[in-house]
Amino acid sequence: MAHKVFLFVGLLIAALFAENTSAADITNTNFPTMAEILAKSKPSDWRTLEPENTIYLELTNGRVVIELAPDFAPQHVVNVKALAREKYFDGLTILRAQDNYVVQWGDPNAEKPELKRKIKTARATLAAEFDRMIDKDVPFARLQEQDGYAPEVGFSGGFPVARDPKSGRMWLVHCYGMVGAGRDTPIDSGGGTELYVIIGHAPRQLDRNVTLLGRVVQGIELLSVMPRGTAAMGFYDKPEQRIPLKGMRVAADVPAAERTRLEILRTDTPAFQTLIESRRNRREEWFHVPAGHIDVCNVPIPTRVPTK
Amino acid sequence: MAHKVFLFVGLLIAALFAENTSAADITNTNFPTMAEILAKSKPSDWRTLEPENTIYLELTNGRVVIELAPDFAPQHVVNVKALAREKYFDGLTILRAQDNYVVQWGDPNAEKPELKRKIKTARATLAAEFDRMIDKDVPFARLQEQDGYAPEVGFSGGFPVARDPKSGRMWLVHCYGMVGAGRDTPIDSGGGTELYVIIGHAPRQLDRNVTLLGRVVQGIELLSVMPRGTAAMGFYDKPEQRIPLKGMRVAADVPAAERTRLEILRTDTPAFQTLIESRRNRREEWFHVPAGHIDVCNVPIPTRVPTK
Repeated sequence: MAHKVFLFVGLLIAALFAENTSAADITNTNFPTMAEILAKSKPSDWRTLEPENTIYLELTNGRVVIELAPDFAPQHVVNVKALAREKYFDGLTILRAQDNYVVQWGDPNAEKPELKRKIKTARATLAAEFDRMIDKDVPFARLQEQDGYAPEVGFSGGFPVARDPKSGRMWLVHCYGMVGAGRDTPIDSGGGTELYVIIGHAPRQLDRNVTLLGRVVQGIELLSVMPRGTAAMGFYDKPEQRIPLKGMRVAADVPAAERTRLEILRTDTPAFQTLIESRRNRREEWFHVPAGHIDVCNVPIPTRVPTK
Repeated sequence: MAHKVFLFVGLLIAALFAENTSAADITNTNFPTMAEILAKSKPSDWRTLEPENTIYLELTNGRVVIELAPDFAPQHVVNVKALAREKYFDGLTILRAQDNYVVQWGDPNAEKPELKRKIKTARATLAAEFDRMIDKDVPFARLQEQDGYAPEVGFSGGFPVARDPKSGRMWLVHCYGMVGAGRDTPIDSGGGTELYVIIGHAPRQLDRNVTLLGRVVQGIELLSVMPRGTAAMGFYDKPEQRIPLKGMRVAADVPAAERTRLEILRTDTPAFQTLIESRRNRREEWFHVPAGHIDVCNVPIPTRVPTK
């Protein structure tokens, strides 16, 4: 194994080199890679998705799995599940794909009273859920890094979040894969009938401006490749460009055999903290200079298929 | 116009409210939007691309325009132009599309000596150009924001850059759309025969680990929608998945009538600084809370089609 990568890591690493310690030893023990951390993880480092808290967005070519965030957007989560259960989204379409920003889906006839999809038991709009009170019952694994957009950032139950101890508030942040409820200008004009997912560099300017309600944990590559719309803001200007949705389902309503089997690394574990360090300072042989820093939206939250 | 958005901006804005000043006045004068800034820009705020410094990546469905960065990667720029001029890329393919990371193109047979594309006058590999000395002749419009990955960030000749005054070095940073020269483990194993473009959240851990040599200024939506590869790191595992390239051309070698007409907002202008502020604190009516911060990779660098 080449030693090159270690020559540039600086004094911290140099100090750890003992005469009889090879670079390989250090790679495998002091500075494990993400792959090594996951290989050595314990079963208790992982959790399964709760079927009642998981949405499947079913496309003609596959399934997008979304974990909901009831700690942060309880009313929106209730409403999106109600919409899914009344089959509101069945046959609606992808409406918008704006490069380096969002893919959005909903009712292409939402503005046409005579044509728009009728809502049965769900609500058309809801009060905004942009942030919530900090509460000891809501976990927060703080990232040591300073963040430009918020006083503190970290992870809560598998979601990237920010906190402001002064105001006592915390909120979900707009990282790649986060799912939110589109709205018009009034802040209470969303509710989940139109949903978007982030497919580009984190648009953190949206934090606390839109209600985030979940995160894509599998299948985002089905959405991120959608042809970009050529109308303003990436909307599709021709009806034939709008890819139809098969529908959205609450995982609990899908027969167990047809559910997506998936485990997610818990973000409240030492394993996750070790993983963050392995990504903050990449010490795989390929890397020449470790960054010494990681953006909250650059921390991967690994998933795996359960072995049994 | 609703006043709601202003209620949350805080004391700074409140102090600016005079009794006879309406919200609309403030929107249009003190805090212009990006659209307003561009509408009021002067011809001298814009520049055209230098044809000798511009590469066209020609796909079967369109053209990707890449501006080269000779101030930062002079040898790589010379070599990529030489490769384009000897038609090295003609008929080669997209090799890799990894979600939230990169799309990469080059020779699918690069590892097969008998099949690989022969290089004529260009060089197969080059010394790394990961950073360069700070020099008064290389512009630097500093962003006031703190950046986690580097002591200073800003813009130089239309490119997002970082600087370290202590070491006297500066370098291009891995924002969405940046183009680099893929390499194997040795740092001098790249050279431009395999190129990648960033299509996800800025992987800043790559800064100073790979040679960046340019930026996509038009057409990235042709690359960002490439179906993601299912082999490790997003490589395409089946030959039929590899989308062929028509080729790469130096714009100067393309008849003037066939060149892409494009102007780019200069990053060394007061207009660009005003634009940054308009994006740091979004005050369009839709926004509820302005962020008060902007990441270097969230600053748009506007382009336009010249009117004559």
